[in-house]
Amino acid sequence: MDYEKKGKLKLEKILGKKISEKALSNFDDLDPKIGKLLSFTYGKIYESDILDLKTRQLCTIAALTVLGNYKPHLKTHINGALNVGASQEEIIEVIVQMIAYAGFPAATTALSAAVEIFQDKE
Amino acid sequence: MDYEKKGKLKLEKILGKKISEKALSNFDDLDPKIGKLLSFTYGKIYESDILDLKTRQLCTIAALTVLGNYKPHLKTHINGALNVGASQEEIIEVIVQMIAYAGFPAATTALSAAVEIFQDKE
Amino acid sequence: MDYEKKGKLKLEKILGKKISEKALSNFDDLDPKIGKLLSFTYGKIYESDILDLKTRQLCTIAALTVLGNYKPHLKTHINGALNVGASQEEIIEVIVQMIAYAGFPAATTALSAAVEIFQDKE
Amino acid sequence: MDYEKKGKLKLEKILGKKISEKALSNFDDLDPKIGKLLSFTYGKIYESDILDLKTRQLCTIAALTVLGNYKPHLKTHINGALNVGASQEEIIEVIVQMIAYAGFPAATTALSAAVEIFQDKE
Amino acid sequence: MDYEKKGKLKLEKILGKKISEKALSNFDDLDPKIGKLLSFTYGKIYESDILDLKTRQLCTIAALTVLGNYKPHLKTHINGALNVGASQEEIIEVIVQMIAYAGFPAATTALSAAVEIFQDKE
Amino acid sequence: MDYEKKGKLKLEKILGKKISEKALSNFDDLDPKIGKLLSFTYGKIYESDILDLKTRQLCTIAALTVLGNYKPHLKTHINGALNVGASQEEIIEVIVQMIAYAGFPAATTALSAAVEIFQDKE
Repeated sequence: MDYEKKGKLKLEKILGKKISEKALSNFDDLDPKIGKLLSFTYGKIYESDILDLKTRQLCTIAALTVLGNYKPHLKTHINGALNVGASQEEIIEVIVQMIAYAGFPAATTALSAAVEIFQDKE
Repeated sequence: MDYEKKGKLKLEKILGKKISEKALSNFDDLDPKIGKLLSFTYGKIYESDILDLKTRQLCTIAALTVLGNYKPHLKTHINGALNVGASQEEIIEVIVQMIAYAGFPAATTALSAAVEIFQDKE
Repeated sequence: MDYEKKGKLKLEKILGKKISEKALSNFDDLDPKIGKLLSFTYGKIYESDILDLKTRQLCTIAALTVLGNYKPHLKTHINGALNVGASQEEIIEVIVQMIAYAGFPAATTALSAAVEIFQDKE
Repeated sequence: MDYEKKGKLKLEKILGKKISEKALSNFDDLDPKIGKLLSFTYGKIYESDILDLKTRQLCTIAALTVLGNYKPHLKTHINGALNVGASQEEIIEVIVQMIAYAGFPAATTALSAAVEIFQDKE
Repeated sequence: MDYEKKGKLKLEKILGKKISEKALSNFDDLDPKIGKLLSFTYGKIYESDILDLKTRQLCTIAALTVLGNYKPHLKTHINGALNVGASQEEIIEVIVQMIAYAGFPAATTALSAAVEIFQDKE
Repeated sequence: MDYEKKGKLKLEKILGKKISEKALSNFDDLDPKIGKLLSFTYGKIYESDILDLKTRQLCTIAALTVLGNYKPHLKTHINGALNVGASQEEIIEVIVQMIAYAGFPAATTALSAAVEIFQDKE
């Protein structure tokens, strides 16, 4: 199976079918290579089972928290973390840990994203 | 036990006694509250066992990779990840995953840091 | 008096009682240690009188301006700067100075935040 | 002709008269030196014809894409790029290229900005 | 021809054979997928001729200048820009333009990188 | 007196004659407009006495600390802060305060810069 296909399947597993399809086709009108790049990159990077998807998602949440700019992406990946078995407590714990590495504004922004996702789930 | 003490113990467990003591006393001549802030913050943040130390270190490596600026800190925490049971493969896998979230320059900088630590270990 | 208490009092002095209480309890449902970390950190960092609160707030505004991501935090701290005696002119002067260190997009984003706060005050 | 004047003319050429005038006078009530700094800086930087305005705008879009924080500025400059002769395809191509240097969240944020501008044009 | 192959050829054209090969094989001992990801990404992104390589390199220099962290990558790409036909003046012009978008420290760091490359060339 | 001249004088007052002249002429061989842009920008921004130079330097140190990338610039401005009357304690206090806004790696990097400057002074 090729990497684009593999990436599609990984993304579906993490984000759910609907969000994953939207992510992959979102910019098809602009340039179809964007979705292909995304699916290939995911297929290639997430191919190995050295890390389970839950650990991967927690690492992605850590990264997006300290980058600070990408609240919509953070919400997508917090949702994805829940999908692959992370608990709300584990997600909060990762974000709180980032206070040490990027300060309070980054962490509280990510906490707000988490609150919004957790409330949608109820 | 108070949080400063707890933080000191967590840091020792992660970084090893020597590096941990240096980290905590590094700026004592400038201002002793710096070490106290660090140990308290670690004690308070890492207090909970919701996340194991290996997962925490992988998340820290993810964060420092995408921040891009902090190679010495990254090396300290890659070393710390090895200390608490992460394999070299798991560390590389986290860094490679960050290509998707922060691009190649951030990831290759972190890979160089990892190479330096792995070579020191041999 | 312990640091959490000290931090609470400093935050009240800077942000006013209402905003300070919200900041400290905002994420209590998620994890009560977040508010405790914030109040301790403030208590410990702002304990010393080496810098007056006005200078501290101007430095915080400089930092949040160049970070670029945190408009809500910037608004909170611009308001806090006014509370501890900074004039509108001094706040604008700090933000304009940041053009040299982080360029126009960072500075104009912060100027918009300042305008919103100043208009609320009228 | 002095640099403020030159900068004004360059900005008009790139952004169009209306947006350029707003950019230059936006903060006049706060501090008239902000507009003067902007027009002087543009006049001085864009004075030389070593780079044509289209190349300059594509470089600005690259920069604002990887900075990640400044969607309104990005929209202004995507619009400006169209004004000075860049095609939609060229703009998308620059943004997609940034996936390699700053990852997918930065690029997809900028792609959304581009979509909003392109739809306004229709 | 597949994308990995295409990317390899593009990288060779930009960076020269020696640096390109080093870039692609640099981390093979750690994980061979890193080089494959890099060559695929380049192949896929740089496939289209909508932008010529000189414009692409100037955009990359703009991006790396404002990111601020990646002096070695910046030097590699300044060298690459010269390889594909950019003049020293054009490269300097792009970096100077970034003063407006990310301030003097980012630009002067990149100017130092440019000086080092230009001196090596003499 | 024109702004370039004013900026030159301000820079001399802050950085001392030798470092200021180097900063302004550093890239004259590449492009003389770089020094002119720097002196004009300083002249225009620092023209007003609304903020004294000590407060300005402390704000610059705050900004460069959280940006994280620019240790040489940070050292130049820590030195400048001492020149215009800031004490070592005040400088350390600003950097420590930044722990709250950008985390420990940013602050400890800046503390190392401060130590290097303070030791040179002895």
